[in-house]
Amino acid sequence: MSSELVVEYLRRAVANSMSIYMNYKRYHWNTYGPLFYETHLLFDQLAGDVLKTVDEFAERIRMLDSEALGSPEEIAKGATVKFASSGMSVKAMIEQAIENHRLVIGEFKKAIRQAEEDGDPGTADVFVRNIQVHEKAEWFLREHLKEGGGLIR
Amino acid sequence: MSSELVVEYLRRAVANSMSIYMNYKRYHWNTYGPLFYETHLLFDQLAGDVLKTVDEFAERIRMLDSEALGSPEEIAKGATVKFASSGMSVKAMIEQAIENHRLVIGEFKKAIRQAEEDGDPGTADVFVRNIQVHEKAEWFLREHLKEGGGLIR
Amino acid sequence: MSSELVVEYLRRAVANSMSIYMNYKRYHWNTYGPLFYETHLLFDQLAGDVLKTVDEFAERIRMLDSEALGSPEEIAKGATVKFASSGMSVKAMIEQAIENHRLVIGEFKKAIRQAEEDGDPGTADVFVRNIQVHEKAEWFLREHLKEGGGLIR
Amino acid sequence: MSSELVVEYLRRAVANSMSIYMNYKRYHWNTYGPLFYETHLLFDQLAGDVLKTVDEFAERIRMLDSEALGSPEEIAKGATVKFASSGMSVKAMIEQAIENHRLVIGEFKKAIRQAEEDGDPGTADVFVRNIQVHEKAEWFLREHLKEGGGLIR
Amino acid sequence: MSSELVVEYLRRAVANSMSIYMNYKRYHWNTYGPLFYETHLLFDQLAGDVLKTVDEFAERIRMLDSEALGSPEEIAKGATVKFASSGMSVKAMIEQAIENHRLVIGEFKKAIRQAEEDGDPGTADVFVRNIQVHEKAEWFLREHLKEGGGLIR
Amino acid sequence: MSSELVVEYLRRAVANSMSIYMNYKRYHWNTYGPLFYETHLLFDQLAGDVLKTVDEFAERIRMLDSEALGSPEEIAKGATVKFASSGMSVKAMIEQAIENHRLVIGEFKKAIRQAEEDGDPGTADVFVRNIQVHEKAEWFLREHLKEGGGLIR
Amino acid sequence: MSSELVVEYLRRAVANSMSIYMNYKRYHWNTYGPLFYETHLLFDQLAGDVLKTVDEFAERIRMLDSEALGSPEEIAKGATVKFASSGMSVKAMIEQAIENHRLVIGEFKKAIRQAEEDGDPGTADVFVRNIQVHEKAEWFLREHLKEGGGLIR
Amino acid sequence: MSSELVVEYLRRAVANSMSIYMNYKRYHWNTYGPLFYETHLLFDQLAGDVLKTVDEFAERIRMLDSEALGSPEEIAKGATVKFASSGMSVKAMIEQAIENHRLVIGEFKKAIRQAEEDGDPGTADVFVRNIQVHEKAEWFLREHLKEGGGLIR
Amino acid sequence: MSSELVVEYLRRAVANSMSIYMNYKRYHWNTYGPLFYETHLLFDQLAGDVLKTVDEFAERIRMLDSEALGSPEEIAKGATVKFASSGMSVKAMIEQAIENHRLVIGEFKKAIRQAEEDGDPGTADVFVRNIQVHEKAEWFLREHLKEGGGLIR
Amino acid sequence: MSSELVVEYLRRAVANSMSIYMNYKRYHWNTYGPLFYETHLLFDQLAGDVLKTVDEFAERIRMLDSEALGSPEEIAKGATVKFASSGMSVKAMIEQAIENHRLVIGEFKKAIRQAEEDGDPGTADVFVRNIQVHEKAEWFLREHLKEGGGLIR
Amino acid sequence: MSSELVVEYLRRAVANSMSIYMNYKRYHWNTYGPLFYETHLLFDQLAGDVLKTVDEFAERIRMLDSEALGSPEEIAKGATVKFASSGMSVKAMIEQAIENHRLVIGEFKKAIRQAEEDGDPGTADVFVRNIQVHEKAEWFLREHLKEGGGLIR
Amino acid sequence: MSSELVVEYLRRAVANSMSIYMNYKRYHWNTYGPLFYETHLLFDQLAGDVLKTVDEFAERIRMLDSEALGSPEEIAKGATVKFASSGMSVKAMIEQAIENHRLVIGEFKKAIRQAEEDGDPGTADVFVRNIQVHEKAEWFLREHLKEGGGLIR
Repeated sequence: MSSELVVEYLRRAVANSMSIYMNYKRYHWNTYGPLFYETHLLFDQLAGDVLKTVDEFAERIRMLDSEALGSPEEIAKGATVKFASSGMSVKAMIEQAIENHRLVIGEFKKAIRQAEEDGDPGTADVFVRNIQVHEKAEWFLREHLKEGGGLIR
Repeated sequence: MSSELVVEYLRRAVANSMSIYMNYKRYHWNTYGPLFYETHLLFDQLAGDVLKTVDEFAERIRMLDSEALGSPEEIAKGATVKFASSGMSVKAMIEQAIENHRLVIGEFKKAIRQAEEDGDPGTADVFVRNIQVHEKAEWFLREHLKEGGGLIR
Repeated sequence: MSSELVVEYLRRAVANSMSIYMNYKRYHWNTYGPLFYETHLLFDQLAGDVLKTVDEFAERIRMLDSEALGSPEEIAKGATVKFASSGMSVKAMIEQAIENHRLVIGEFKKAIRQAEEDGDPGTADVFVRNIQVHEKAEWFLREHLKEGGGLIR
Repeated sequence: MSSELVVEYLRRAVANSMSIYMNYKRYHWNTYGPLFYETHLLFDQLAGDVLKTVDEFAERIRMLDSEALGSPEEIAKGATVKFASSGMSVKAMIEQAIENHRLVIGEFKKAIRQAEEDGDPGTADVFVRNIQVHEKAEWFLREHLKEGGGLIR
Repeated sequence: MSSELVVEYLRRAVANSMSIYMNYKRYHWNTYGPLFYETHLLFDQLAGDVLKTVDEFAERIRMLDSEALGSPEEIAKGATVKFASSGMSVKAMIEQAIENHRLVIGEFKKAIRQAEEDGDPGTADVFVRNIQVHEKAEWFLREHLKEGGGLIR
Repeated sequence: MSSELVVEYLRRAVANSMSIYMNYKRYHWNTYGPLFYETHLLFDQLAGDVLKTVDEFAERIRMLDSEALGSPEEIAKGATVKFASSGMSVKAMIEQAIENHRLVIGEFKKAIRQAEEDGDPGTADVFVRNIQVHEKAEWFLREHLKEGGGLIR
Repeated sequence: MSSELVVEYLRRAVANSMSIYMNYKRYHWNTYGPLFYETHLLFDQLAGDVLKTVDEFAERIRMLDSEALGSPEEIAKGATVKFASSGMSVKAMIEQAIENHRLVIGEFKKAIRQAEEDGDPGTADVFVRNIQVHEKAEWFLREHLKEGGGLIR
Repeated sequence: MSSELVVEYLRRAVANSMSIYMNYKRYHWNTYGPLFYETHLLFDQLAGDVLKTVDEFAERIRMLDSEALGSPEEIAKGATVKFASSGMSVKAMIEQAIENHRLVIGEFKKAIRQAEEDGDPGTADVFVRNIQVHEKAEWFLREHLKEGGGLIR
Repeated sequence: MSSELVVEYLRRAVANSMSIYMNYKRYHWNTYGPLFYETHLLFDQLAGDVLKTVDEFAERIRMLDSEALGSPEEIAKGATVKFASSGMSVKAMIEQAIENHRLVIGEFKKAIRQAEEDGDPGTADVFVRNIQVHEKAEWFLREHLKEGGGLIR
Repeated sequence: MSSELVVEYLRRAVANSMSIYMNYKRYHWNTYGPLFYETHLLFDQLAGDVLKTVDEFAERIRMLDSEALGSPEEIAKGATVKFASSGMSVKAMIEQAIENHRLVIGEFKKAIRQAEEDGDPGTADVFVRNIQVHEKAEWFLREHLKEGGGLIR
Repeated sequence: MSSELVVEYLRRAVANSMSIYMNYKRYHWNTYGPLFYETHLLFDQLAGDVLKTVDEFAERIRMLDSEALGSPEEIAKGATVKFASSGMSVKAMIEQAIENHRLVIGEFKKAIRQAEEDGDPGTADVFVRNIQVHEKAEWFLREHLKEGGGLIR
Repeated sequence: MSSELVVEYLRRAVANSMSIYMNYKRYHWNTYGPLFYETHLLFDQLAGDVLKTVDEFAERIRMLDSEALGSPEEIAKGATVKFASSGMSVKAMIEQAIENHRLVIGEFKKAIRQAEEDGDPGTADVFVRNIQVHEKAEWFLREHLKEGGGLIR
């Protein structure tokens, strides 16, 4: 059976993933500018990708016989990522998301090592599959911050 | 039964909605620039959203036992929105669409009040449901005219 | 590259096809009599078949690097088919549609010859595929005008 | 919370809608003549449209914390529409259905006013959405009784 | 051709099946208690299973060239099953349904024998296929009345 | 194992069913008059219903370890139904189809008795299921020949 | 255009609806007992129903040209419903959800009146449609708290 | 308008295509040997591909205002391909099908030239599209007659 | 109600059908040779066809108020068919399957007679429908054992 | 290449997974009591989840070039889980399933370690993915054995 | 039968189309800048459109009884279009794709003339249908290189 | 972050997987003999399975912030597998594919070890999931080379 440490990683994963989902919906609603339609769709796509991972983490906690947290307060308290705020530029949204994905990727790697040490391959696999969601989103957004490739300038 | 005024609102709704649909297809075909793919898709999406409302207005007229108009000449004559023309910039397309949606939103509000006064909740509901199509399109396009949010400039 | 003549044929095809679509929707809404349900469905089916061809013609114009027209005024001006009007009998609707399809079939044949002369097989194929939509509709409607086959009279 | 009057309107809506559904199935089975296939399909389509509304009315009663009725006896007793009977001509079926739809439309309008007075917008909306099912069916059938439009006579 | 007796069995099958359908919708709306969601879904599932059989019986009557009945009054008069009433407990709903299914199963067996005697294999098969709908429902409900199997008590 | 008689019934069923299918396609193509669209769709629907039964009969022959026939010549020779011919009125098409269905229904009943005598319940069931296709089609068409029910005359 | 009051109602609707969604997911994960499977499915179904409404409220705010909030902190601060906490019994989950739905229903009714006063039928309709989601959920859960109907006790 | 010659080509195309379809079904039923499953599926696939072309040819005849033939006798008389017969080996089935496809391909090429000469691009296109069905089938079957490629021998 | 004999037939049907399913999966996994892909697919298709029948037999036992068996031990004990074993050639797999299908077909015929004697048409129909699954599989496999039809040898 | 030990783990996985599938079907058929519908559905859901894993294990054995076992006798002999038996209470079914899942989870963990030692990441991944099916089922069932959460008791 | 020249055109079409497909995937992976999401999707869409044409060309070669080439080396050798390389700007990707499409369009026109001269309408049609894929892609990309239409600059 | 070695493994995986895809399409087009249909389908199925893995490898390179290669030249240069060539027998195709899969399986195992050493579980998982595609294909093809199992020889 996995150690209590792994449960903590799973609880943080729920809090951070739900927070990133909520951030994305917030960006989705408040984006603007000539790229409105593109970013409106992109943020919603990424929000959906991340939301699907929340259920897996929470249900994994239950399989390890602990309680899964998830109310707004619990999420706000348990998360270590940054929250979206008023008046952000689209660029700031993207930079914040990248920073959050990187933080989560780092934590998931530690969780994988811990789960493997504890001899809990199922939990490790949950993190291994879901880390790739964050790695892909990080790539997508990172590319948006590069120069325009000659099309725009 | 609804008054003749409501039938007039419905006939104008057919003419204006069909005109906005035709404008959008025209933008869809003639858009250009680095945002070609995004705007090509967006204009077609909005065209489709508006076309779906035309049938509802026309059939409502028939339920009130009047004749529904719809030939190109009748549409051209009955519409109060602006028509797309040659040589418009993409920005001009968007500005024209916003202006047209606002005009239609104003007319639909009057139509709703009239239908409610006439004790015709079915007709009122047709306008209430479809006004939201125009309100959403107006928001989508309005955002495109804002500054680039740090990504482009 | 195709000559300017072919672009004219394509523009007329857009105007006429959109007009026939709008006529069909108008018949669809205003048909009546014991065959109401059958003709209501049939006119809508034919409207949909024709609408699908409009996009192809307009986008073909763009591939030939010309501007595609499509606002209600442009359609009303560019069309050579007859427009639906008030107070038509169902029989008159069908007769008008047959006449319009025949006119369009004749024009498409000329367009095919022109495109082949210009060495533009893509444009020719667009007309060849879509002429069959009009030929099938013409047959469907033509049969409705025959005597009742013993069932009704 | 809505008054007892609104619950009465909802109970009558269940009884009348279920009755119209059952009438339509009866017409669907017993129609005949050269228009057999058309009317067989049409009556089944309208039956299905009306059946979907029954669930909404009954569940609305439950949300208002009253008991929903629905056995054959309760329906037979609670309905105010006319019931289909043996030996009806197809024309008589259509005339009966039109009459029933008009009766229901009148009742729904009263129900909407009552629900609005009671400050119960949810119930009002249930009636507003479903009144349109009856208004559309009334139009469809009314057109069938007009002269043949030149095709048949 | 089948005897008049078989038509009577088919008419009773229509009346009883439609009544059981209506009873199930009534249970579906008015069920309650800790098993609300389970029984709400189950009653609707069974209602749908039975409704599908009604069309088959009624259309079979028409193939035998008789008139199919189906108005609320005709159903109420022609049915031999018990009707749902106010204030039933969930247990009483289930007991009533079981009793009704058993009655119908018995009648269908007689109908099958009669149809076979009349040399009408098509009608016999309609009863043979649909008897299984009632046999399965009877089993499902019968099991609910047994003791809780150690889970609940 | 079934007797050779049953194989003969199955071979005739293939020939007659394929012939009725081909007749229906022929009616489907050549129908005309004000009911063109309705009868065009109806004949195609019935054609499809009957075609599905051909495979079952032919494969059943193979399960009984005999050869299944099916070339145009074999069908023309093996069929006992009437074939469509040039210049038929729509009414004549319907009358021919009714006559053919009745002939087939009679043969299938004999086949069922034979298969039951031979102790071959699988073959009997193939006929029992497929006889209902013909019984339903016969009803549909028979109704078309009745007087117009007040709508048309 | 709607007053600032309506925007406040919409912001509260986002916060409360997102909170109820998050509560439901929490119940979905942590439910237990003999009704585990039923309540596990039910809570997830209701979570999904409520989540769909969040997007509508937030996008409506944007149509009214205000900023939509949605980060975990903003939700936690803006919500007036109760949050799920550790160690709740299944019964306590259901009681809390009922209480929350009732609170939201009351607020939505006020919002509808305000939007109507402001002459903003689109916003009013968003509340009218979505109030029914809460009214249905409240009914479903309320029934679970009743006595067992004879089945269980 | 197309000459009478083209109508003759279309009539032959109906007869030959329907015959090839019927041959394929016959092969499909009577194939045997270690490749039973493969050839059983392949013959049915090809039968379906060819059947789809029959409707197009017959309806094209109707568009040219002639009568479409299609009864078993008419097909048997009008076809120029070979018919399947009793006792064919699987290899003989494939050889017969290849021969038939080649005959049809030759005829279609003549029909295309005739339709082009008559200035009937629609009819020409029907043949052009459908010739490819036969060309592909001919390739598929031709390959089966080659040596086994080292796998079998 | 059916006699105990019929329950015995149903129990044997469960055991034999489940065994044939398991045999087919075993063949599916271990087949080999140039026909690997064809037989791999065919065995899985037949496995699926047979598995669908198991549920019907077992649930029928429950409708007759007896206990359905199904654990591996009970299946192994209750089955009368032969079990797959190690080292079988593909031909031996097919021969074993044919033999098993024939045994089952014989038993189902006896079961049908018994159920008919007991006046239990529902049970009889379960056997009648499912016997055809075995009769078709037997034909499919039997053909594979014939000579190669000229293609292979 | 993997050692023979891993093949043994895979063979045991096939035997145990197939046994658990068969147990679940047996529970699915024989469950009873007020929770009949819920447990009937749940057991079938879990049966399906487990059956999907059997194919993966067996095909993995084939990739490692060994023979996959699967007849009823082989399953009965190779399994280490407990088999369902007559007269079990629903609670006993759930307890047996939990015990079996735990046994399998333990074995899969050992198999994962062995496959990793053998440098066979593909086999390890098959176990890692499928262990989660058992871990989720174990959680689902474990919760059912807890006290009723205030709803029932 | 087509001349060897046509086979050469088909082989070049395979090589060039596969190369364009591979180029598009390369652009799809390596695009960047504020338009990342739009161009990432667009390049993949165009890649898919072109890949669908490859199969048609290759299978056409087989119908003409020649060998179809397709290994990476053969493609690299047989292609006349430019290959994507490292370090391209997004603008350079688009310019290269336009140039390649224009080259292919020119070649396809020659191929069409050759196939028509050879009396091979099937091959001609394969080129005619697929030339339009390249003409549409060329238009899409060409528009991206125009000035921004007022939105961006 | 992963070392440069892992990027090299990913680049080779792109080149080899794309090459195997192209080989399979080439076999798919040029296969022949009595097993044509089976091998034509099988090679296309395997081609599709492998193509799906290419995108994953290329996008993984981008997540590691390197450039993904993919033009025909780059693929031809970067691949270590053998390329299909002219005049191969079907047996030679299968032998070549088996050899290529084995080479790739070996490389993927090294890549997995490297990625695990680098602490990059996401990349490792990409290889672990996709190695199974090659392992399954290797098994499928390997079986085809065995003796015929008594069916053919």
